[in-house]
Amino acid sequence: MRNKGLFITFEGPDGSGKTTISKLVAERLEQCGYASLYTREPGGNRISESIRDIILDVDNVNMDIRTEALLYAASRRQHLQEKIVPALLENKIVICDRFIDSSLAYQGYARDIGIEDVLKINEFAIEGHYPDITLFLDISAEEGLARIEGRDHKDRLDLESLDFHQRVYDGYQMVLKQFKERMVVIDAERAIDDIVNEAVEIIIKGFKNE
Amino acid sequence: MRNKGLFITFEGPDGSGKTTISKLVAERLEQCGYASLYTREPGGNRISESIRDIILDVDNVNMDIRTEALLYAASRRQHLQEKIVPALLENKIVICDRFIDSSLAYQGYARDIGIEDVLKINEFAIEGHYPDITLFLDISAEEGLARIEGRDHKDRLDLESLDFHQRVYDGYQMVLKQFKERMVVIDAERAIDDIVNEAVEIIIKGFKNE
Repeated sequence: MRNKGLFITFEGPDGSGKTTISKLVAERLEQCGYASLYTREPGGNRISESIRDIILDVDNVNMDIRTEALLYAASRRQHLQEKIVPALLENKIVICDRFIDSSLAYQGYARDIGIEDVLKINEFAIEGHYPDITLFLDISAEEGLARIEGRDHKDRLDLESLDFHQRVYDGYQMVLKQFKERMVVIDAERAIDDIVNEAVEIIIKGFKNE
Repeated sequence: MRNKGLFITFEGPDGSGKTTISKLVAERLEQCGYASLYTREPGGNRISESIRDIILDVDNVNMDIRTEALLYAASRRQHLQEKIVPALLENKIVICDRFIDSSLAYQGYARDIGIEDVLKINEFAIEGHYPDITLFLDISAEEGLARIEGRDHKDRLDLESLDFHQRVYDGYQMVLKQFKERMVVIDAERAIDDIVNEAVEIIIKGFKNE
């Protein structure tokens, strides 16, 4: 049996159900007898919370996009060191709701900084702690946006928002290609229970294999 | 006449007189008719000040060294965009008290992250805005430490502090080699007025030449 845990991340566009599903997956793993931890940035540590406050402060309207990317990377680093790494050392399965790939898709691609540049600062932040498996919840930009806006009719979607959602989706496709060895695409346009079952099976198999 | 200003940074170990000298240099340049700006990070902008508050918060004792390096880079980015770049666009001579090379010497070398890694996140932050000229105030580790500790007798210096000061000095030597085309070494163990005169001459020459 390995003694270094398993590091799982959930990724996907807004509306793909990441938070709901990743929490359910962590619960199911516990039920099955696997010590697990659900977490997401900033992850409750004081330093990352303070960083997040700066990012989200509505008065900081003139925040440069690269400043923001560096702050996300700083928050990620601290969360990794304070919460993720210690749990992995306890042989836990860590389920992290968004991680490095979100920055690559949103800031690198959709916000146009460039995936390679955003990757560099995040590689500095994670120092080799890539996820063992990343589960990408695959949902079209239209469907994702319709879900978060609580609308039944996709034809009423805000076109500007849809364009941004499409860019995020396209960014994730680039990331999927670049890191295909750790990526698993899961069809997220199905019933939640089916998605959770598939994710749990993949994770348990991964935990046993390593 | 150029219309992009001149970007000058002052670097050197603690006790080398950077702040005193760079302020005097900015004043002298104004006297000589050159519009100039003295600044240092965080530079008075709201976002960089908030970032600096997190770095300096004594309760954040468990801040990871890489988190700190990312926060310095974020603060630098915002200061650059809000203050330095606009002044350069007004054709000013910008005198910045510490910039990228401080991170390379202190965090990259003295704190052991590695100069190349710290360079990567700072290149992301500065996006090509390297200083036109960097004036390195050269003073030995012993002399610098003696000055900041206000001591006359160097033999009473704290050995641990001296070791760190020596590492910072050695880090600057690496940086001087790596970026020699923009670096000018100034002997800082002389009278302040001599140092200011030499710096002002170098800067005015640089301004006219570009």
